[in-house]
Amino acid sequence: MNPTHLQTARMDTGMEFKEARLDNGLTVIAEVNPAARSVAMGYFVKTGSRDERPEESGVSHFLEHMLFKGTPTRDALEINLEFDHLGAQNNAFTSEENTVYHGAVLPEFGPRLLELLTDMMRPALRQEDFDTEKQVILEEIALYADRPQFMAYDWARERYFRGHGLGNSVLGTVESIEALTREQMADYHARRYSPSNMVLALAGKLDWEATLEQVREITRGWRPAAVQREYAPFEPRPGEFRQPYAQATQSYLWHFAPGFAAQDERRYAAGVLANVLGADGNSRLHWALVDSGLVESASAGHEDNDGAGLFYAFAQTDPANEQAVAEVVRREMERLEREGVQADEVERAKNKIATGIVFAGETPMNRLFNLGLSYVYTGRYETLGEMARKYEALTVADVNALLEAKPFSRGFLYRLVPENGDGR
Amino acid sequence: MNPTHLQTARMDTGMEFKEARLDNGLTVIAEVNPAARSVAMGYFVKTGSRDERPEESGVSHFLEHMLFKGTPTRDALEINLEFDHLGAQNNAFTSEENTVYHGAVLPEFGPRLLELLTDMMRPALRQEDFDTEKQVILEEIALYADRPQFMAYDWARERYFRGHGLGNSVLGTVESIEALTREQMADYHARRYSPSNMVLALAGKLDWEATLEQVREITRGWRPAAVQREYAPFEPRPGEFRQPYAQATQSYLWHFAPGFAAQDERRYAAGVLANVLGADGNSRLHWALVDSGLVESASAGHEDNDGAGLFYAFAQTDPANEQAVAEVVRREMERLEREGVQADEVERAKNKIATGIVFAGETPMNRLFNLGLSYVYTGRYETLGEMARKYEALTVADVNALLEAKPFSRGFLYRLVPENGDGR
Repeated sequence: MNPTHLQTARMDTGMEFKEARLDNGLTVIAEVNPAARSVAMGYFVKTGSRDERPEESGVSHFLEHMLFKGTPTRDALEINLEFDHLGAQNNAFTSEENTVYHGAVLPEFGPRLLELLTDMMRPALRQEDFDTEKQVILEEIALYADRPQFMAYDWARERYFRGHGLGNSVLGTVESIEALTREQMADYHARRYSPSNMVLALAGKLDWEATLEQVREITRGWRPAAVQREYAPFEPRPGEFRQPYAQATQSYLWHFAPGFAAQDERRYAAGVLANVLGADGNSRLHWALVDSGLVESASAGHEDNDGAGLFYAFAQTDPANEQAVAEVVRREMERLEREGVQADEVERAKNKIATGIVFAGETPMNRLFNLGLSYVYTGRYETLGEMARKYEALTVADVNALLEAKPFSRGFLYRLVPENGDGR
Repeated sequence: MNPTHLQTARMDTGMEFKEARLDNGLTVIAEVNPAARSVAMGYFVKTGSRDERPEESGVSHFLEHMLFKGTPTRDALEINLEFDHLGAQNNAFTSEENTVYHGAVLPEFGPRLLELLTDMMRPALRQEDFDTEKQVILEEIALYADRPQFMAYDWARERYFRGHGLGNSVLGTVESIEALTREQMADYHARRYSPSNMVLALAGKLDWEATLEQVREITRGWRPAAVQREYAPFEPRPGEFRQPYAQATQSYLWHFAPGFAAQDERRYAAGVLANVLGADGNSRLHWALVDSGLVESASAGHEDNDGAGLFYAFAQTDPANEQAVAEVVRREMERLEREGVQADEVERAKNKIATGIVFAGETPMNRLFNLGLSYVYTGRYETLGEMARKYEALTVADVNALLEAKPFSRGFLYRLVPENGDGR
């Protein structure tokens, strides 16, 4: 009696996948589920801090804010009022390589939400709104200064990915934001928000033909443009860096190591490996660091980006234990590389991941993210069941094969520590 | 076409409520939904930091950790392995007045999850585990020192609720945790984890009769004990406090004001009022503080506790704007008390809250929290539709009635600010 088997047999029931490409280049995809109680949708724009020129640092995230400030026919108040009238659960986020605008409503309000989100994709970028929102962005940058864990993450990425766009800060800096002009933002928008660089994804209860007809109509004025992303060569250099920080009383350790890209089928095995190393509650790092009382939490994961991937591990510790924690992390990684993973660990990790897929699939909103983010980088639709079966099929040998290149030994250990810390 | 009407007509379909009280005093409740893909369940223990003696400060939260460390027949590894074998999504949390242990699994694994959670409620509390876990708790207290927003919240509550248990820290202090003994914890457990002080709640796909039979069998050994909670008189004193903090580079403002208890029907109108004041994206504080560029985020809400309630508002700001932000918060609150709320604001807030109820009801796990937490303090079951209709029935007069007592003018403003800050 294995949960994975039960799940895969059940999870694709009643779902139907649809896709279309409009003449302007926009891709529209949908996972239609007539039994759902809501419909979720989102524009997945294939752009983020990795696509910014140095003098534009932070523009992707700032632009995300500006899309809520107005279009040629709506001001900020009208946009917010419409979301509220629809009773929408909506939000947006920007990462190193994605900018996503999403919402969920009752099925009756799907067409109105679609119209609103689509209108927002062509913002007015009014100078006055730009100037006011710049202050909000500067506030946001300032508030992260009080979150050492976040700063450690940002700075560790910058050092690990040195010279590669994946190391670019999403927020940008006070200097880059202060210097940014409305014209630079408009230029970035014109370059990156081409329909050919966007995917509109929908999940839940919806009428596919009517949706497609509506999208065609309301994006008629959208012009395609050639869009490129730079894939700078990236070769991780093993090393470490230790940085004192006035706002920290604790020590923050991030370990980064080369992983597998979103286009690489080995990313499934990488997910299992990261789970064995550092899943919450039951993993090598949990038993070595948390159960032993050294730290309150420790974790590891795998991130598959466009053309590159990353194993990460994190621990936060009393400065007095910093050296001990760093040594345990290294020891557990070396042991993995030397001895490989155990069969029962792999089964457990597969089981946890597969169950996570089922729970993620319970609501259209959660389903939307799987659907949109994976399609953007693979151009393929994978049902929940297909995804779960890929994990199910993995063997100990598949996972151990990833360890042959000794990825963790080629990793980078970053520590953010209190000033005057005695961790050494 | 109002989303609220559509929702209330639809949301209770197929749900059946069940409740029973066992001879040992344990209450078991369930919202059975045969169409669900999973089952969620949790023990809701009516205990938290407000129920701690001064010398036990932090014991509720520490005890929550210890329930994962072992029972007479399982050690920590066996507990974690069983959760993993079931593919459970599980967790626990402790607040000022609740300690909750919850999990969700595929329906087939419901009985095994129930057995595991039930076994955990009677922990072994082994001395060795206690000593090790004490270090984890101390680590957790230390890590919050680097999160000024959290510290500000804890200290603001302590000052606002001075002398009332709702001001007690959930984590406790380094001193109280270091001094705590295993015997004190065992005594607290015996006093507070009586079956008569616990509710077992379930939601989703399950067989009620079989569940009840199983619970009776596995809790046969549980002994009832008399449990009391102190309801100290609480009279808020208007005032303010400003505290410098070495780890802060930003200023953190919390405003607390008297609200309505979980047993008070006016809590629905209070929820609408708080939404009008400070809901994310579209509210008085949003337009006055965020849209104007003063802060990156500002929010307000209402918390209904056992026998008391709280309006809260929060803003985080550049120290240079601290005074301006504090003045805007006060001005908006005074304006509310003077002019009351507008009809369109109330409609919007009702609509947002009702839609939130629908989305919260999409998965058994989300449903579980509404069900368990409200039942513990009201002893009554409310369907999603009933809850939504209570909001729907509210009028502008209902909301304005709450403002007659001028709750915000009787509030308390707490600020955590950088050392050497120039906010004044």
